[in-house]
Amino acid sequence: MKTVLIAGFNGSMGQQAVKLVNSMEGFAITAGLAHHLPDSDPTSYGLPASTQLFTSLNEIPAGIADIWLDFTVPTAVYANVKYALTHGYRPVVGTTGLTDDQEVELKKLTQDNHLGGLIASNFGMSAVLLMKFAQEAAKYFPDVEIIEMHHEDKKDAPSGTALNTAKLISKNRPAHQTAPDETESLAGSRGGDYEGIKLHAVRLPGYVAHEQVLFGGAGEALTIRQDSFDRKSFMSGVKVALEQVHTLDQLVVGLEQIL
Amino acid sequence: MKTVLIAGFNGSMGQQAVKLVNSMEGFAITAGLAHHLPDSDPTSYGLPASTQLFTSLNEIPAGIADIWLDFTVPTAVYANVKYALTHGYRPVVGTTGLTDDQEVELKKLTQDNHLGGLIASNFGMSAVLLMKFAQEAAKYFPDVEIIEMHHEDKKDAPSGTALNTAKLISKNRPAHQTAPDETESLAGSRGGDYEGIKLHAVRLPGYVAHEQVLFGGAGEALTIRQDSFDRKSFMSGVKVALEQVHTLDQLVVGLEQIL
Amino acid sequence: MKTVLIAGFNGSMGQQAVKLVNSMEGFAITAGLAHHLPDSDPTSYGLPASTQLFTSLNEIPAGIADIWLDFTVPTAVYANVKYALTHGYRPVVGTTGLTDDQEVELKKLTQDNHLGGLIASNFGMSAVLLMKFAQEAAKYFPDVEIIEMHHEDKKDAPSGTALNTAKLISKNRPAHQTAPDETESLAGSRGGDYEGIKLHAVRLPGYVAHEQVLFGGAGEALTIRQDSFDRKSFMSGVKVALEQVHTLDQLVVGLEQIL
Amino acid sequence: MKTVLIAGFNGSMGQQAVKLVNSMEGFAITAGLAHHLPDSDPTSYGLPASTQLFTSLNEIPAGIADIWLDFTVPTAVYANVKYALTHGYRPVVGTTGLTDDQEVELKKLTQDNHLGGLIASNFGMSAVLLMKFAQEAAKYFPDVEIIEMHHEDKKDAPSGTALNTAKLISKNRPAHQTAPDETESLAGSRGGDYEGIKLHAVRLPGYVAHEQVLFGGAGEALTIRQDSFDRKSFMSGVKVALEQVHTLDQLVVGLEQIL
Repeated sequence: MKTVLIAGFNGSMGQQAVKLVNSMEGFAITAGLAHHLPDSDPTSYGLPASTQLFTSLNEIPAGIADIWLDFTVPTAVYANVKYALTHGYRPVVGTTGLTDDQEVELKKLTQDNHLGGLIASNFGMSAVLLMKFAQEAAKYFPDVEIIEMHHEDKKDAPSGTALNTAKLISKNRPAHQTAPDETESLAGSRGGDYEGIKLHAVRLPGYVAHEQVLFGGAGEALTIRQDSFDRKSFMSGVKVALEQVHTLDQLVVGLEQIL
Repeated sequence: MKTVLIAGFNGSMGQQAVKLVNSMEGFAITAGLAHHLPDSDPTSYGLPASTQLFTSLNEIPAGIADIWLDFTVPTAVYANVKYALTHGYRPVVGTTGLTDDQEVELKKLTQDNHLGGLIASNFGMSAVLLMKFAQEAAKYFPDVEIIEMHHEDKKDAPSGTALNTAKLISKNRPAHQTAPDETESLAGSRGGDYEGIKLHAVRLPGYVAHEQVLFGGAGEALTIRQDSFDRKSFMSGVKVALEQVHTLDQLVVGLEQIL
Repeated sequence: MKTVLIAGFNGSMGQQAVKLVNSMEGFAITAGLAHHLPDSDPTSYGLPASTQLFTSLNEIPAGIADIWLDFTVPTAVYANVKYALTHGYRPVVGTTGLTDDQEVELKKLTQDNHLGGLIASNFGMSAVLLMKFAQEAAKYFPDVEIIEMHHEDKKDAPSGTALNTAKLISKNRPAHQTAPDETESLAGSRGGDYEGIKLHAVRLPGYVAHEQVLFGGAGEALTIRQDSFDRKSFMSGVKVALEQVHTLDQLVVGLEQIL
Repeated sequence: MKTVLIAGFNGSMGQQAVKLVNSMEGFAITAGLAHHLPDSDPTSYGLPASTQLFTSLNEIPAGIADIWLDFTVPTAVYANVKYALTHGYRPVVGTTGLTDDQEVELKKLTQDNHLGGLIASNFGMSAVLLMKFAQEAAKYFPDVEIIEMHHEDKKDAPSGTALNTAKLISKNRPAHQTAPDETESLAGSRGGDYEGIKLHAVRLPGYVAHEQVLFGGAGEALTIRQDSFDRKSFMSGVKVALEQVHTLDQLVVGLEQIL
């Protein structure tokens, strides 16, 4: 039996994580961390009655769980993961907000403590597999563009996942420039550019969160598309992470790296 | 029997037009116009043996055909259509290059001569129907974006058909701005802008000529897509134009206006 | 000001209709009909305080509204619409369950009473426009197939909307058979057949309700796709129906017939 | 320098292979085999002038090439590959028609001769990557359907590549049945069935050869699509095979197995 502490169990992602771990054979929630605890009864949060609840790191006794599952907030995540790694937990982290420097430091800490862990900005399996496959396909299809579509309330473009996809592709494809001498009669028509990879962002009501990677080669095309219709899709990837975190011997960034 | 003069019958589009008219019941090619005529035998161009061939406008006798089908060059089209309208022909024109002023003048000439005719920049039925449907859908879905995909040798962006689609939509939708306060972390990600309609152009090897119009509304989306795999697709629209030009009482611009 | 009676105002569709009519300028809800009324206060259902509520047809006084908006149940809809037409209401009906005979009778009743009305099985504008456009495109592209995708809990195939699309196309296309002498190495691969139109039904978790109509012609393809992500999409079509029902001089079946 | 014998160099695939190998740095065509040789000048087939041409297996001297590239016919392929393996060539085979028994025998022969080789029914990289990715994704998304689209002259359904994709997925996914208790109001709507995986085949003019694999999970979907617009797309995969065949220590079936 693997035991799990859920940090941020009372947030919206945390509550879905509670349901997930409860449903997984061979896993048990033994502890929960939350800064505010209006109700001290674990069952009122869907947790097993025996779950121990804490409101700060220094209350937590040693050895209470194997895995530290973190869905907290950007201001808390660095201290949480550092605590986890220095107290023998294997972290699975869905909270964003770590700086590059903090990631480097936490990776070192993982090595020093002979542990493994996973940090992922996206646990949706369709998005994660899209990134993995796109990275692989780029070896054979260096000509590639990305189109992402989101609801009209998303104010920044392109999406973090689309930009991340471009970065992964860029690492893996031969140096390449498609159609370098083109002209735009409407500025921006050819999209944003990340090291020669064009990104296009669509914003329309009705849409939720969708991404397409388009590859073209002589006489053929390959397209990988993912659609996120609902937040609950994130939990399929958390399940995979929980099942595999014990096999890792470093702090991996990106679920697509371990599939 | 409707009789047809084909101007530019020896070009690549003209040759396809020859095959098309030969195959249409109730239509016959009676004359051909081409500036250079290396061979004076009509059958060497696939034309009926009785076809009369000419190399300049002033050689053509009166009343030789009902319809003037023009697939020539931008420098010849204005003089050709003017000649046709003042000599009793109904023009069907696939040649580009008319200025806005020339179009206005030719429209007036059509009225003065109690004729009808059609000028179209695109005779591909899938593209023409896409434009027609997009124009209609915009009444109900003011939120819309356009994505076009072409082979990597197309140097200008967006495509003429995509821009034309945006113009048609713009005429038909209520004044509207989607997501006005967004920001781009990569310049150009949100595409080119035509009166609030975003256009995105993809350029990849393998692709031929494709266009998508994406509409979004509360809880739903509508997408219209056309794919042109081969130039022969243009002839389906020429057939429709030839069949309908006798019903027109003005010079119509755009095949989508008469479907 | 147009006045509206909502039959079935307390159901899930009815409640959305209440919100819609409240938000429409020039329209006011004056009456509501529901068989069970646990609460007699109109405001507890989101209705204006002045709304008169009834639990049976014979309680309703004459002239209480112009439009009868019906989101009730299959067993009630026939009696409701008959009552509406014989008491001067113009019906807008989203309830299913009328037989063909009942439709014929109600159409006659509409004529006899010099009224107009609309019955629609689908008020989602993307689905309705897809049907309208597909019907038009079939005139030019007789080769067509339909693919619909739904969540895995939908037990019947194909969907009613897909079958309805095939019927509308069938009326409008020339008699036609694509690929008549094909063979299947797996039975069913070529889909279901409605008068030569192939229908394919996909059932997968994650999907909501989606339909594509694929047209093919020489060297080109046209695809019309609609995605319903959420039930709230239905209200956009109800709005169009309420705005146009006063212009109708018959009982129209299908919102796509009046766009 | 790797040397190549091309069997079937005068066929349509063979001629494309000639162009490909001529363009590859580090590779040279040294021999060609064809049953009929109307012209004995290698350059008339695009081959280097020094290429030795043969019309039967027993004319070929020992050691004339490293790689046997076979684009011949079903009746010749077995004898050819057997000859190649017993004479020190590494075979790269694009010819179809080997029986399962013949494949087993040739695999054994490859081991006995300490060679490696590759047999592939499809060398289009987009199709091959689609199969590879679909196989991987099935581990995480057991709910999956396949839609393939081909021109209307393809008489069998589903396509060999689609069926092959289903077989690869079937090997890799947990035992699974989507929507087992559904009903069809039109027989065949739910497609063909391969071990619980539904396959749908579309046949329309305009289309060339296209395949989509649709995965669905809670709240999300993943789609992999490939489009073959032109036969020349096959050569990208032959290039990969030629570059990698020296690293293989067995006879691999399916290019997707070595990517």
